[in-house]
Amino acid sequence: MINIGVIGLGYWGPNLVRVFNEHAGSRVTAVADFRADRCDRLRVRYPTIHSFATADELIGSDVQAVVIATPLAHHFPIALRALQAGKHVLIEKPFTSTAAEAQILIDEAAKRKLTLLVDHTFVYNPAVSKLRDLITSGELGELLYFDSQRINLGLFQSDSDVVWDLAVHDLAILHHLTGDIPVSVAAVGAVHLEGHPVNTAFITMQYARRFIAHVNVNWLSPVKVRQLIVGGSKRMVIYDDLGPGNKIRVYDCGAEGLAADDPDYRRRVDYRFGDMWAPHVDPAEPLGRLATHFVACIEKRAEPLSGGDAGLHVVRLLEAAKASIEKSGTPVPFATE
Amino acid sequence: MINIGVIGLGYWGPNLVRVFNEHAGSRVTAVADFRADRCDRLRVRYPTIHSFATADELIGSDVQAVVIATPLAHHFPIALRALQAGKHVLIEKPFTSTAAEAQILIDEAAKRKLTLLVDHTFVYNPAVSKLRDLITSGELGELLYFDSQRINLGLFQSDSDVVWDLAVHDLAILHHLTGDIPVSVAAVGAVHLEGHPVNTAFITMQYARRFIAHVNVNWLSPVKVRQLIVGGSKRMVIYDDLGPGNKIRVYDCGAEGLAADDPDYRRRVDYRFGDMWAPHVDPAEPLGRLATHFVACIEKRAEPLSGGDAGLHVVRLLEAAKASIEKSGTPVPFATE
Amino acid sequence: MINIGVIGLGYWGPNLVRVFNEHAGSRVTAVADFRADRCDRLRVRYPTIHSFATADELIGSDVQAVVIATPLAHHFPIALRALQAGKHVLIEKPFTSTAAEAQILIDEAAKRKLTLLVDHTFVYNPAVSKLRDLITSGELGELLYFDSQRINLGLFQSDSDVVWDLAVHDLAILHHLTGDIPVSVAAVGAVHLEGHPVNTAFITMQYARRFIAHVNVNWLSPVKVRQLIVGGSKRMVIYDDLGPGNKIRVYDCGAEGLAADDPDYRRRVDYRFGDMWAPHVDPAEPLGRLATHFVACIEKRAEPLSGGDAGLHVVRLLEAAKASIEKSGTPVPFATE
Amino acid sequence: MINIGVIGLGYWGPNLVRVFNEHAGSRVTAVADFRADRCDRLRVRYPTIHSFATADELIGSDVQAVVIATPLAHHFPIALRALQAGKHVLIEKPFTSTAAEAQILIDEAAKRKLTLLVDHTFVYNPAVSKLRDLITSGELGELLYFDSQRINLGLFQSDSDVVWDLAVHDLAILHHLTGDIPVSVAAVGAVHLEGHPVNTAFITMQYARRFIAHVNVNWLSPVKVRQLIVGGSKRMVIYDDLGPGNKIRVYDCGAEGLAADDPDYRRRVDYRFGDMWAPHVDPAEPLGRLATHFVACIEKRAEPLSGGDAGLHVVRLLEAAKASIEKSGTPVPFATE
Repeated sequence: MINIGVIGLGYWGPNLVRVFNEHAGSRVTAVADFRADRCDRLRVRYPTIHSFATADELIGSDVQAVVIATPLAHHFPIALRALQAGKHVLIEKPFTSTAAEAQILIDEAAKRKLTLLVDHTFVYNPAVSKLRDLITSGELGELLYFDSQRINLGLFQSDSDVVWDLAVHDLAILHHLTGDIPVSVAAVGAVHLEGHPVNTAFITMQYARRFIAHVNVNWLSPVKVRQLIVGGSKRMVIYDDLGPGNKIRVYDCGAEGLAADDPDYRRRVDYRFGDMWAPHVDPAEPLGRLATHFVACIEKRAEPLSGGDAGLHVVRLLEAAKASIEKSGTPVPFATE
Repeated sequence: MINIGVIGLGYWGPNLVRVFNEHAGSRVTAVADFRADRCDRLRVRYPTIHSFATADELIGSDVQAVVIATPLAHHFPIALRALQAGKHVLIEKPFTSTAAEAQILIDEAAKRKLTLLVDHTFVYNPAVSKLRDLITSGELGELLYFDSQRINLGLFQSDSDVVWDLAVHDLAILHHLTGDIPVSVAAVGAVHLEGHPVNTAFITMQYARRFIAHVNVNWLSPVKVRQLIVGGSKRMVIYDDLGPGNKIRVYDCGAEGLAADDPDYRRRVDYRFGDMWAPHVDPAEPLGRLATHFVACIEKRAEPLSGGDAGLHVVRLLEAAKASIEKSGTPVPFATE
Repeated sequence: MINIGVIGLGYWGPNLVRVFNEHAGSRVTAVADFRADRCDRLRVRYPTIHSFATADELIGSDVQAVVIATPLAHHFPIALRALQAGKHVLIEKPFTSTAAEAQILIDEAAKRKLTLLVDHTFVYNPAVSKLRDLITSGELGELLYFDSQRINLGLFQSDSDVVWDLAVHDLAILHHLTGDIPVSVAAVGAVHLEGHPVNTAFITMQYARRFIAHVNVNWLSPVKVRQLIVGGSKRMVIYDDLGPGNKIRVYDCGAEGLAADDPDYRRRVDYRFGDMWAPHVDPAEPLGRLATHFVACIEKRAEPLSGGDAGLHVVRLLEAAKASIEKSGTPVPFATE
Repeated sequence: MINIGVIGLGYWGPNLVRVFNEHAGSRVTAVADFRADRCDRLRVRYPTIHSFATADELIGSDVQAVVIATPLAHHFPIALRALQAGKHVLIEKPFTSTAAEAQILIDEAAKRKLTLLVDHTFVYNPAVSKLRDLITSGELGELLYFDSQRINLGLFQSDSDVVWDLAVHDLAILHHLTGDIPVSVAAVGAVHLEGHPVNTAFITMQYARRFIAHVNVNWLSPVKVRQLIVGGSKRMVIYDDLGPGNKIRVYDCGAEGLAADDPDYRRRVDYRFGDMWAPHVDPAEPLGRLATHFVACIEKRAEPLSGGDAGLHVVRLLEAAKASIEKSGTPVPFATE
């Protein structure tokens, strides 16, 4: 039984309290939030949980692991103190505000042999796991493109723009699916409310091989869309996270045979379409799978699916997108250090 | 009654023959294609139409107007000779291969007071007309973004890439809706079949004001999508050209009121959503409306909705996108000459 | 503050505990279930709630109102004892197993001036409220038909068939929307697993006026559908409870003008289609609205939206459907007593 | 080369002219319609086709086969005269107004060894062929139910009600898929415009075995739906004729394992869902396949897929539905003579 402390009871924190409490191998024994009303509201449901006004007090208590669900600016200092106090750490996405901070946390966790896990939620989504299986098993052939649209009407946040709020998910999925390192990142962003952060952005990553990745994120869309298309040389997949029924659809159509000078080409394209197949996807809640994985990594001292390195990679992509946006879309080289 | 000659009987030509024949004010009296089998097949349906093996012969006949539906490379020379022979000209999109050619045709038509119309098909689509009405009437407020996805499984063409084949539609719609001149064009493209043209591209146009336009085109998509979102400060519109039922949906939600530091922000976003409204759109065929417009412009010597200037503007955007793709996505200034 | 006791902690009971606990005017002080493990699981979340092994013990405690979420067979005896003990009663749908039982409960509640509310959940669904507003305001004109499809893959229940499990919702909605009394009920049902209850049924209600209602329910459907079409002489509505976005769509098309001997009728039908309009629907949870309504009815001694009479009407429709199914579909007169 | 005459140039006739003209083995040499303007309009496109004012004149000409696309009341007399004149006959659905007429035509064709084909269009739809293959190959297991919804906004016809206009398609598909004979037919219909035919109907067929079929047709629907669900003991299929992409979806879920007293039943239902599979369906036009089949049956003296017997079976179902509607829904036995 691992005792968990959750810091930050805004939107996401209470969900984390719930899943770690429902997990057989863990229990939430303490929470911390500077707003007393949030602590009070939580304790109506969970009267036995201890509440603290500051992160430091919670870190000083007897919890073995700390879950950090605060605004981004606080991720790094709290995570560093928690690691230094010998606590395992689960940290919400995005990992940190800068790659430099991410590296410090990685080193600190490695030195102390502590589990450091970044909550790239979609890595724990069964549909993404299924998509990864399709790729690694070779079913899709060589990967040709990744094209994601993640748009909705969202509240403008003060500590984040749409890239750090939404595109972070796509970049985490992209990294989980391929692990490839792009050659450059180009991004264009728009600010539609003066004095506010970028709310619409288009990010394109180019690679040394014939693979391309594109992410379209928007806080000003009239409809909510969560759609990812992954094109392979043999098959293509659509992952519609909001679709009714099966979320993953595999299309038995590939890039071969399309290049020809044929007057009847429309007919040929029709014939090239094969079957579509929508595999069953486990309906388990990603957050529950995340909690299970975090506890298992602590117990078995195992490497997390989304550890500090994955978190660092995604932060570096976010930094590159930000730099390109500031240069009006000029591509930024993505150097590997 | 205007006598029309149609040059090029590939995929689109026979449709043009059909609509001009069904129009009360015109009839197709001649066609030309170097492939005799295409002429023969057409004459099974229309035995009274005269067929020629070359464009020059057709231009030399007694037609009053020439419709050019050949591969792009032939647009300019044929159109020039037709204008010089005093014929009105309807030319398939894209107008020409270069802006320089476009300018020559514009000048020639002006000099001879001939109608020169570029078939930007979607300009004649009733749904696009409705969308334009919504914009010009101020219903949407200030335009904030234009985001289009036009993807499908398509045959790779030898004389065109996906930008000149598909994005041309979006650029024509964009020009028709706003008429604004971008400051720069950035585009990234991918070649997934060696030795073949760009088959996947992402194009972003930035403007002096807080408006942004983005076009996503792909010949390697497992599904066909034709979706355009136009965001305004007051309302937003989705135009789904393939949707069942009403293709235009107007969402009563705007950008105001989203920027606030509010713990209950999800609730606020919920409340900001208002009604959705899907106006009736005339089910008329765009091609029929195009034919009617071409005949009317000839008869009344009127300025076409998509004349040479619109065609030139779109060709210049296509050239800029091409230049940016060749520079790996570096934005290209869009100078106004 | 009203003290509530919840009897039955199967699938739905814990949700009722949650909403009455979150409501400012009530709190759940006791629960009862003969399965101790269910009580234990609930008390992990709500350690201060008292748990009983029997309904009688709970009724004997100091709760002011009793919520009954047991299997149907227990509804009547428990509700009767609760009313006799002076407790207000909220009872899950279907109200009772027979109309006779329903009448006894109605009389008992009336005699003691206690609130008796039947949980016809959809009556508290904001989309159904909106639909009712559209009808009562005359927007739809005269009602012509009600056509509902409620199908999914469901576990076969031992104490219920698909009519009492699923069609009960449609019959409750139908009653809430019109209040009309049918002349007859015809129903055909199928048993696809021997020894098990009816799992597929089609129910049709005929009325004295030109209105007709039809309900299609199925536990063996590969997809989940919750779709209701309401046709009026002026406008028609589709209520899709699972659709993304706006659940209520109002179509500006009516029955007028369809009857004509016109060779161009397809064009005329096209032109008869007007706008579609999807009004904003409050995203509030129906169960929360139910809890609020129950508390308000108790406090203000008000008549519930779905009181004993509505419950009785629906039970009588269910009985009629059952009788018709047993007669292989022969319509059963629906007499008003 | 078979010479074909087409009688009746209303909505469907010109389509039949087109497909038989495009078929390599046939050509339309004559048409007949009492309205001269219809003949004239057709001859603009096909100047070489001979036109007659009466069916008799056409039958008296040198055509080898006659296609009858007139209003229903004329089907029988024209078909009979054509057969008596030694012509093969293709007749639009519904076959005839009564079963007695159908039998006379069947006998006449048999006596003269002529091809008699009823245009049950959907029998020639590749999606229906695929569905039939899935059934006959045993993929679906034992058939449990057939549930079809065919609704749209339609013009009220003077010579037909919604059952004879729309349900005829479902009954033809049902017969093609199973060939089973129902024990009874129950139908309820509604007349929403006084003095006009039934425009909304619900038809249910019961069988000796545990199979049930249901058809929902409506001329007053705000949306167009063409959806058929076929449930089998092993797998279930949805055929959505209007869906984008693959029209046939096979769900790997069956009736087994649903009957159990299990508190965690929702989870069990989740796990019972397997993959979904949407096989490629040939995009060929049904009408083209029909023309090919008619010509092949004539040339090879083969038995048609939808000959007189299929037509008779469907007419008998239509008559039974009509009789049940007249008895307010009382089921009518479906005797086999």
